[in-house]
Amino acid sequence: MTRLPIIIDTDPGIDDAVAILLVLASPEFDLLGLTVVSGNVPLEDTLRNTLQVCELAGRTDVPVFAGCDRPLLRQPVRGLFSGREGLGGVVLPPPRLAPQPVHAVDFLVKSLLEAGRTGEKITLCALGPLTNVAVALAHSPGIAAGIERIVLMGGGFRELGNRSIAAEFNILVDPHAASIVYEAGIPITMLPLDLTHQALATPKRVERLRAIDNPVAQVVADILTIWDRKDIDRFGELGGPLHDPLVFDYLLAPDRYSGRAARVWIEHTSELTMGQTVADWWGKTGEKPNAEVLTKVDAQGFFDLLGERLARYPLPA
Amino acid sequence: MTRLPIIIDTDPGIDDAVAILLVLASPEFDLLGLTVVSGNVPLEDTLRNTLQVCELAGRTDVPVFAGCDRPLLRQPVRGLFSGREGLGGVVLPPPRLAPQPVHAVDFLVKSLLEAGRTGEKITLCALGPLTNVAVALAHSPGIAAGIERIVLMGGGFRELGNRSIAAEFNILVDPHAASIVYEAGIPITMLPLDLTHQALATPKRVERLRAIDNPVAQVVADILTIWDRKDIDRFGELGGPLHDPLVFDYLLAPDRYSGRAARVWIEHTSELTMGQTVADWWGKTGEKPNAEVLTKVDAQGFFDLLGERLARYPLPA
Amino acid sequence: MTRLPIIIDTDPGIDDAVAILLVLASPEFDLLGLTVVSGNVPLEDTLRNTLQVCELAGRTDVPVFAGCDRPLLRQPVRGLFSGREGLGGVVLPPPRLAPQPVHAVDFLVKSLLEAGRTGEKITLCALGPLTNVAVALAHSPGIAAGIERIVLMGGGFRELGNRSIAAEFNILVDPHAASIVYEAGIPITMLPLDLTHQALATPKRVERLRAIDNPVAQVVADILTIWDRKDIDRFGELGGPLHDPLVFDYLLAPDRYSGRAARVWIEHTSELTMGQTVADWWGKTGEKPNAEVLTKVDAQGFFDLLGERLARYPLPA
Amino acid sequence: MTRLPIIIDTDPGIDDAVAILLVLASPEFDLLGLTVVSGNVPLEDTLRNTLQVCELAGRTDVPVFAGCDRPLLRQPVRGLFSGREGLGGVVLPPPRLAPQPVHAVDFLVKSLLEAGRTGEKITLCALGPLTNVAVALAHSPGIAAGIERIVLMGGGFRELGNRSIAAEFNILVDPHAASIVYEAGIPITMLPLDLTHQALATPKRVERLRAIDNPVAQVVADILTIWDRKDIDRFGELGGPLHDPLVFDYLLAPDRYSGRAARVWIEHTSELTMGQTVADWWGKTGEKPNAEVLTKVDAQGFFDLLGERLARYPLPA
Repeated sequence: MTRLPIIIDTDPGIDDAVAILLVLASPEFDLLGLTVVSGNVPLEDTLRNTLQVCELAGRTDVPVFAGCDRPLLRQPVRGLFSGREGLGGVVLPPPRLAPQPVHAVDFLVKSLLEAGRTGEKITLCALGPLTNVAVALAHSPGIAAGIERIVLMGGGFRELGNRSIAAEFNILVDPHAASIVYEAGIPITMLPLDLTHQALATPKRVERLRAIDNPVAQVVADILTIWDRKDIDRFGELGGPLHDPLVFDYLLAPDRYSGRAARVWIEHTSELTMGQTVADWWGKTGEKPNAEVLTKVDAQGFFDLLGERLARYPLPA
Repeated sequence: MTRLPIIIDTDPGIDDAVAILLVLASPEFDLLGLTVVSGNVPLEDTLRNTLQVCELAGRTDVPVFAGCDRPLLRQPVRGLFSGREGLGGVVLPPPRLAPQPVHAVDFLVKSLLEAGRTGEKITLCALGPLTNVAVALAHSPGIAAGIERIVLMGGGFRELGNRSIAAEFNILVDPHAASIVYEAGIPITMLPLDLTHQALATPKRVERLRAIDNPVAQVVADILTIWDRKDIDRFGELGGPLHDPLVFDYLLAPDRYSGRAARVWIEHTSELTMGQTVADWWGKTGEKPNAEVLTKVDAQGFFDLLGERLARYPLPA
Repeated sequence: MTRLPIIIDTDPGIDDAVAILLVLASPEFDLLGLTVVSGNVPLEDTLRNTLQVCELAGRTDVPVFAGCDRPLLRQPVRGLFSGREGLGGVVLPPPRLAPQPVHAVDFLVKSLLEAGRTGEKITLCALGPLTNVAVALAHSPGIAAGIERIVLMGGGFRELGNRSIAAEFNILVDPHAASIVYEAGIPITMLPLDLTHQALATPKRVERLRAIDNPVAQVVADILTIWDRKDIDRFGELGGPLHDPLVFDYLLAPDRYSGRAARVWIEHTSELTMGQTVADWWGKTGEKPNAEVLTKVDAQGFFDLLGERLARYPLPA
Repeated sequence: MTRLPIIIDTDPGIDDAVAILLVLASPEFDLLGLTVVSGNVPLEDTLRNTLQVCELAGRTDVPVFAGCDRPLLRQPVRGLFSGREGLGGVVLPPPRLAPQPVHAVDFLVKSLLEAGRTGEKITLCALGPLTNVAVALAHSPGIAAGIERIVLMGGGFRELGNRSIAAEFNILVDPHAASIVYEAGIPITMLPLDLTHQALATPKRVERLRAIDNPVAQVVADILTIWDRKDIDRFGELGGPLHDPLVFDYLLAPDRYSGRAARVWIEHTSELTMGQTVADWWGKTGEKPNAEVLTKVDAQGFFDLLGERLARYPLPA
């Protein structure tokens, strides 16, 4: 089997953690490294959470790199539902793993430049604010040649905002970084709130995960039990949207998804609409699309796959 | 029957013309005056169109007032589907009526101040850019006491824009005026694109209007035959959305509509999102709602009423 | 003698009061009316102060008109040195005069349209935020034909700001109104902080005014005794800059002044630079000048004239 | 003699070239490296120019590092007087030197982190757009501990702009980078246009340099002969302002300079004032100063020193 070479840029974060566990159970991916960024919680916490999640999965072989500890220009904004340490209150053992002694941006630059040279392009999966990716691009725009595409969770259109009234969290935290990424000429596949709000971790779905009798699945069920269940008015049923894991479900099963190409811009001047993603759906501007925007998913198919993959983790010793 | 005292501020414009004809056939309204503003076409044209439509309806008793001929700060933007003179190419006889020798803003100020004194409040129906209303408010904020509420066609949320990628035409043309209106503390009922895109003048619906055997209905059918029919990709079927008449259908039959209260702001600093309406749907800001946003309509009910009312116009002599 | 027909738009305010007293003692001016606007203090206070100053001067014949009571879009900002009621703590008798029963904007529109028709153009002297003037222009752009020019105190260039770090008070209070005025195609003569900071009401100059033995001069000396004397670091000597009266000194003795034509814009989108006046001094943009910017004055000449004029007021009965 | 350890970040550029030649003739400096950035001309040209200037000075030992080739978010703006290749038309031999095989940002990060560890802090001298410095700070905010201070040519206050009507070239090119630098909490000494416009390369001064009989001085005289001499209206005499070399004159002879501490912000949201530096000179905001702004220089003293140093270069072989 040819595995898909990927790098994950992430800020765990509840749904980031589930996303990483999904990847680590999926042999279709060749995970070259995890680059960590400040986001839902400070870098110190997102880094520790990443290490803990890798250890939980028994995958101490995956290199983890600490990256940027703050947005480019703006003050940090934190996640609302992450809990003090970023996993919604679930406590994992202190990590024995150490991060690599290399900056996340340096790892991105080196790996992607080399991928550009060899032609073995890498799919860059971005689950958090885009600071690491933007700094890598500002440092070495040539990394574009080594990126197959960027698949990112972020933004919103008909579902305009979550963290503010006009913006999704990942873009809001560092809209300048997002603008650098969106203007870099790299193919982007974008999973906005319009999509992720279709994938609710309902109590019933969480119960099915809990029924999987291994420690990893139990932790996932624990995390999701805590996960934002109160917005029934907004989402139509109980359960928080499980944003980030969809990035990998999409890579595994693109047929479950549909979307639409559009030119997308990032608002970074107005405080009212700061961090909003704005699309030209109808070709009004004459500019070429820079993103494939995914807008529909078969959510049950995703949860079925998630359960199937979590079931691959070993039983307790 | 107690009739509802209204003033219509308008920039005909195709759907404005249909809206006025609907009102003039509806005895439930006490139309105190039509104030005209620059918008879809220049003031000279919107003024002539208004006079022509009143004459077509045989209602030479309705006072018509010319208002502001340009937006407060920005350069004019014109409607895309209005044709050179604003009625999509339909030619009506030159008007014999003359406008009143009073500025639209002066009429608004005088009528609304008096309504505030007498307590017989007026419903202000705004179908175009909000320049006239904003200048009246800047001149005399006390007119708020004479306004029952402002019912306006404008803005968009999930249906974000029509004239630009982020903004609906009426708000885009004069976002500063719109901001003055939305921040004035007056109850606003808002019919955004989300609503009006449900009311498509499909060929079938236009044919039913054409079957009405009187000159007014024939003109309406002619206008709507020309009206933007190409966006089947966007709207799901043929036919342009018939925005403005919904304002009066809503006043006649509010049960056909549902909506939601929200705090709404107008973007007026960023070129990317200029003129966007931004709502706090989920109470994130803690601010009180300033608008009732209508989001759903029984469109067939509206078209049935429109046909029924147009049928009241007399047969040709 | 042919007198210069002027209208003064004002928000007294200390230096506004001195300016009005200078005009009322100067037969070269034909003062058609005083239009009052919210500014240094609320409209209620600027209106009362205007009436009191006219009575102090014994000029109960001058019509006074109340205008706009708030900026177009922004929240009011108040003057720093005006005291609670706007005259720096000086208390004048309650006015017996009443304002005219006509809105300031209506008076501006009517007078200026008529001046356009007769060709007897009026010089519009603006001493406060430009809300009244902007609303008159939004209402009736045709008033431009009746304006000889607008001579205004406002803005700053090398002396960038006073009320904020980037903006002079009058422009900061209503930058949207200022932008309407500056983009209206009317000749503007502008007295910015660069100029007015040269005209300091030093203790010595105030003493010379106090030595004038009539009640009006005494009040002026009292007001100026209170007037901002603490910025010796900024101004190089004691005494606050006497901004507004320079408008009339300039009209009386233009040879005391020098300046330069430039295209000037008003910043109204960024909070950091909100209300800043930005000039193209070096023709970088290719746009034609819209303002004559006065930059140098013989300040002692002005104070000599001020003393000479105040000495014309009658001795106490 | 203890030499001052410095790194120069630069985009030659005419005055950059003169600045480097001044440093290379001044034993007071320990020049650790030259980091090159896109600016007056594209990176390819600024890099070649830097190498050529080092060779001209016979200083092939100085390491040169290529950095960022474009601004963070904005499209590049180029210098007006640089000529096609950046040295105003002067042609130097193709360089034999090669740049180091290390990115400028990596060199900055490594050197400055080590300086922080050892306590031998480095003075960072920035002569161009601040992209390299900003990317280094975004990558590793900890480099602040290794920076003695940043001494930079950029911005303007009473002399507001040169490249645009409100902004100085270096800040205008990358205002987002500038904002990152100004908000980083590092001591900044700033040489704005207010200062550099005092140091005009008048024909007389250029002639005195030309009289120095060595090849380096001849090249400097050639470059400056071409250098912007037309703005006599703006500068009061012939000759372009010699901006960048003042950074090093200041470090050599600080007594020639006077200035003032202020909180300075960078405008990066409004197109009108984009790249403007805005200072709180009068403590209106209550924020602590983040920059020492130099405002006066004894220009003749600088030109005397420049001549004295250029005279140290060897005669032709």
